[in-house]
Amino acid sequence: MLEDKNQEKTSLSELGEFGLIKHLTKHFSSYHKTTIKSVGDDAAVIDSSEKQTIVTTDLLIEGVHFDLSYMPLKHLGYKAVMVNLSDVYAMNAEAEQITVSIAISNRFPLEALEELYAGIQLACNTYNVDLIGGDTTSSTKGMLLSITAIGKANKEDVIYRSGAKPTDLVVVSGDLGGAYLGLQVLEREKQVFQVNPENQPDLDNYTYIIERQLKPEARKDIPELLKELDVKPTSMIDISDGLSSEIMHICTQSKTGCKLYEEKLPLDPQVISTCEEFEIDATMVALSGGEDYELLFTISIDDYDKIKGNPNLSVIGHITEENQGMNLVTRANQEIELKAQGWNSFKG
Amino acid sequence: MLEDKNQEKTSLSELGEFGLIKHLTKHFSSYHKTTIKSVGDDAAVIDSSEKQTIVTTDLLIEGVHFDLSYMPLKHLGYKAVMVNLSDVYAMNAEAEQITVSIAISNRFPLEALEELYAGIQLACNTYNVDLIGGDTTSSTKGMLLSITAIGKANKEDVIYRSGAKPTDLVVVSGDLGGAYLGLQVLEREKQVFQVNPENQPDLDNYTYIIERQLKPEARKDIPELLKELDVKPTSMIDISDGLSSEIMHICTQSKTGCKLYEEKLPLDPQVISTCEEFEIDATMVALSGGEDYELLFTISIDDYDKIKGNPNLSVIGHITEENQGMNLVTRANQEIELKAQGWNSFKG
Repeated sequence: MLEDKNQEKTSLSELGEFGLIKHLTKHFSSYHKTTIKSVGDDAAVIDSSEKQTIVTTDLLIEGVHFDLSYMPLKHLGYKAVMVNLSDVYAMNAEAEQITVSIAISNRFPLEALEELYAGIQLACNTYNVDLIGGDTTSSTKGMLLSITAIGKANKEDVIYRSGAKPTDLVVVSGDLGGAYLGLQVLEREKQVFQVNPENQPDLDNYTYIIERQLKPEARKDIPELLKELDVKPTSMIDISDGLSSEIMHICTQSKTGCKLYEEKLPLDPQVISTCEEFEIDATMVALSGGEDYELLFTISIDDYDKIKGNPNLSVIGHITEENQGMNLVTRANQEIELKAQGWNSFKG
Repeated sequence: MLEDKNQEKTSLSELGEFGLIKHLTKHFSSYHKTTIKSVGDDAAVIDSSEKQTIVTTDLLIEGVHFDLSYMPLKHLGYKAVMVNLSDVYAMNAEAEQITVSIAISNRFPLEALEELYAGIQLACNTYNVDLIGGDTTSSTKGMLLSITAIGKANKEDVIYRSGAKPTDLVVVSGDLGGAYLGLQVLEREKQVFQVNPENQPDLDNYTYIIERQLKPEARKDIPELLKELDVKPTSMIDISDGLSSEIMHICTQSKTGCKLYEEKLPLDPQVISTCEEFEIDATMVALSGGEDYELLFTISIDDYDKIKGNPNLSVIGHITEENQGMNLVTRANQEIELKAQGWNSFKG
């Protein structure tokens, strides 16, 4: 009775994930002065006296966000925590607690869940985070994980997506595109395996990008590094859906444009060689790949000397006035408009 | 490759939900002094200076926790929030924020989600709670909701499950068993409808118990009432899995026994008449029905005069020494051992 038989109804794919959340929550109002920031950033902010509490949540679903035929359960547990911690660090906050809710079908034995929790525990130990609760239940199909992460920050330290100003530099940590390419390699090997289960995959040439996909690390070190360097970003976001999509969030919320430079995009040599092998454009992968969990932020141009030459950071462009749009300057010195082609779970 | 083909592995139903969480989290340790209480109570507690932050989360899955053939989506949204707020109130805290994550298959149009959010919004408006975030994604099958609620309380006001003492009185708000019976009526009507879709159900005799199932209210008023009466419970829990299961949590965590009296269990007349119609024992329904979302708590016997005769509260027994066990005294003055027969999502 709830199926969509009415052709006039709105399909979810028309809205996309961001449009959907915005649409569904636009009539909600805030009651508490302590609710500093709710929907619309990486995480919610709750005032707790001098410190502010940071809350973020993510839902990971088998068959949508992960494929257990090549994602070991321990890695899945680890990655699920990383996805959430990354959002806390993107607020320039310290992650302190997580809750983990899991639904699983009867096809999983206890030992499978133990593996999953071993990954969650490794993440908690490595990142000094406390598991403080959750819910465990059966599902009618497959596995899903819902994690909420909670962090703390001094009020004056919290960094939103909305603070970028024209002339600010756009900076990214680490390198881009690896996680997406790792997924392509794993998908290819899965298909080979389905045709010929005897075939032993040789993945030596892909170790880095496969690790980027299966065991990403949240960049806890970057806010610490920036503090040491005495640089406070004007805006910050983590790269979960691809660089294009994320810089567009910063520009939209900051009411600015931006200019990124293709030649400045940080690419690992394995990303470049694998792109050649797969005959895909490395720039496209860096812009739209997603799941890199690097931090993207903007800094005042006055801080350039403080970060210049740091091997963890790449300046990839600058913020412009809003009316100049959001553009990529190609190696051929052409300007093309950025498009958010990141992952949209309601498409396809 | 992850299916349970090994007969020696442990099935999840052997452990049950509580055993599973305990089993999976027993090796985790806490890093932060601010993590006051994690797994093992209704909600987690985080110290935020003079106030403490309360966090609780619940996962609701179509086909496991709800059936959309008789649960309107607006009611589902409302109830999903109630389930979480109830846990916050059971800590004697004020609920202030929620996050809502939703996964849905393509069979739902936007309008269905709008209905769901209308229910969530009604709950937020009625209970003065802020929606501060969440995640929305597609699912491969059905709908699921994951809600996290966050509350605040003064450190000295938080009430755990572990504070009951021998001679304390056991008190419950409202009445018991209605939600479970409402579900039985709805299940029966669903089967009648499947046989004869022309049949119009006459539900006039069941309005109260159906409302208890479809639109439960979290007992925000009870902690307020107790404050007015100057009574601070020694332990408190909300009744989501049935009275038996909940009083056993209090006794186990408080290292006590208890004695409940069958004749004292609060039953609505509609519960009694519907039990007669269905030929089921009303006491069994009150003990094991679940989903009532009433508060169960213990108070010092010295506070008895303060609550005596209050229409919202029923004294149903008292706490004993641990070695006396957990028992129900029947109308025939026989003592029978309490058993947790509450809902277990891993069983059948």
